[in-house]
Amino acid sequence: MTRYKLLIEYDGSPFVGWQRQSNGTSVQGEVERALMEFIGTPVRVFGAGRTDSGVHALGQVAHCDINKDISCETVRDALNHFLRKVPISIINTESVGQDYHARFTALRRHYLYRILNRRPPPTFGQNKIWWIPNILDVESMYESAQILTGIHDFTSFRAKACQASSPVRTLDKLQVDRYGSEIHIKATAQSFLHHQVRNIVGTLVMVGASKMNASAVRAILKARDRSSAGPTAPPDGLYLVKVDYP
Amino acid sequence: MTRYKLLIEYDGSPFVGWQRQSNGTSVQGEVERALMEFIGTPVRVFGAGRTDSGVHALGQVAHCDINKDISCETVRDALNHFLRKVPISIINTESVGQDYHARFTALRRHYLYRILNRRPPPTFGQNKIWWIPNILDVESMYESAQILTGIHDFTSFRAKACQASSPVRTLDKLQVDRYGSEIHIKATAQSFLHHQVRNIVGTLVMVGASKMNASAVRAILKARDRSSAGPTAPPDGLYLVKVDYP
Repeated sequence: MTRYKLLIEYDGSPFVGWQRQSNGTSVQGEVERALMEFIGTPVRVFGAGRTDSGVHALGQVAHCDINKDISCETVRDALNHFLRKVPISIINTESVGQDYHARFTALRRHYLYRILNRRPPPTFGQNKIWWIPNILDVESMYESAQILTGIHDFTSFRAKACQASSPVRTLDKLQVDRYGSEIHIKATAQSFLHHQVRNIVGTLVMVGASKMNASAVRAILKARDRSSAGPTAPPDGLYLVKVDYP
Repeated sequence: MTRYKLLIEYDGSPFVGWQRQSNGTSVQGEVERALMEFIGTPVRVFGAGRTDSGVHALGQVAHCDINKDISCETVRDALNHFLRKVPISIINTESVGQDYHARFTALRRHYLYRILNRRPPPTFGQNKIWWIPNILDVESMYESAQILTGIHDFTSFRAKACQASSPVRTLDKLQVDRYGSEIHIKATAQSFLHHQVRNIVGTLVMVGASKMNASAVRAILKARDRSSAGPTAPPDGLYLVKVDYP
């Protein structure tokens, strides 16, 4: 029995999300199908982050156990062969110990949210970026973002369907930068609540559009009420970039 | 009569190229259609570079004359409205003098060629990048690229269908850099022959794959024979990035 760690890139737009679901094709389901076609028996895959429908990954991490000793390169190439019809690519494969678990031993998750902030509409990247035609004030977005870093009760930024036992999370970093006509929001934490990044982005965009200020963001955090915060940003701009392990 | 300079971005994959043609939808044809819908009379558009079928642009430049005095912002927004169903976006519009000509007064054209150079297949950017699974030697590609800069007879790198009167061109810059799993080849010249960038890229890839060396590249240049050089790289990876004017 060998445990393999898989580094996975995917365009999330055609999927119902990472997790296997009855209502459509999932990334997990496709990787498990590829493993089944390769190995011949069912293999379960455990992912580090359950990305939502339409959310992308540049560096999702998952693990699986295979009852044979196969070289990492062979596992990678075989899976990519069986995944050739879907926008999922196994970037790297390594063998790890049985104490490794993609979800439970993860130290930090890094997300990127991309906004195209210009009046002309996008031409590249359909479903890959959130287009906001009115110019946002990135400096005030950055200022408000700093209010949200650290340990907080994020009830106001969590989806109603969120199943986490506690709404308290530690946001290690929340960066807001402009690169030409793109705004990049980078969020790092050990773990996130359901929709947390997208709800934070939706609120920061309100701040950037001068519909809200820093003290309103402070009040939202204190309110512990989802309806006090901004709307949920669309999944299109969100990327799971990297997961750190010890 | 006002002359407008248009800065245009497009995803070239659904088009037969910049130039209007009888066999399909062109970028020029779409911009002229949008102008017709906006102004109500036919308006001709002159582009700086005739990009081929499937070639993209981040900064194509074109000009047109409109028999009315309309603000630049209105021209840009109206064209983008009538272009909303195609991946063409007018990034900027400015009014210029009658002595300005997008093609004939252009000083330099800047092209970028993107190669995804990694064994795992691409997930993002279908038709937006050339995927080469075997790792290329970027340093030897760079060395050979320097042989091609300067003034040369580029007959070996021009398409047979090329209509330019002279095969002599001055290549100002030919840069080859690796950024993670992407290789970017940047070419700058006052003007290019038909397929020149793609034929140069096809040859540099042969060098990077150790199927050719620098002295072979010197010999190809001297041979003045298209069949001596490498194959034409696919249009997918090519972007017209910028056009300089006085």
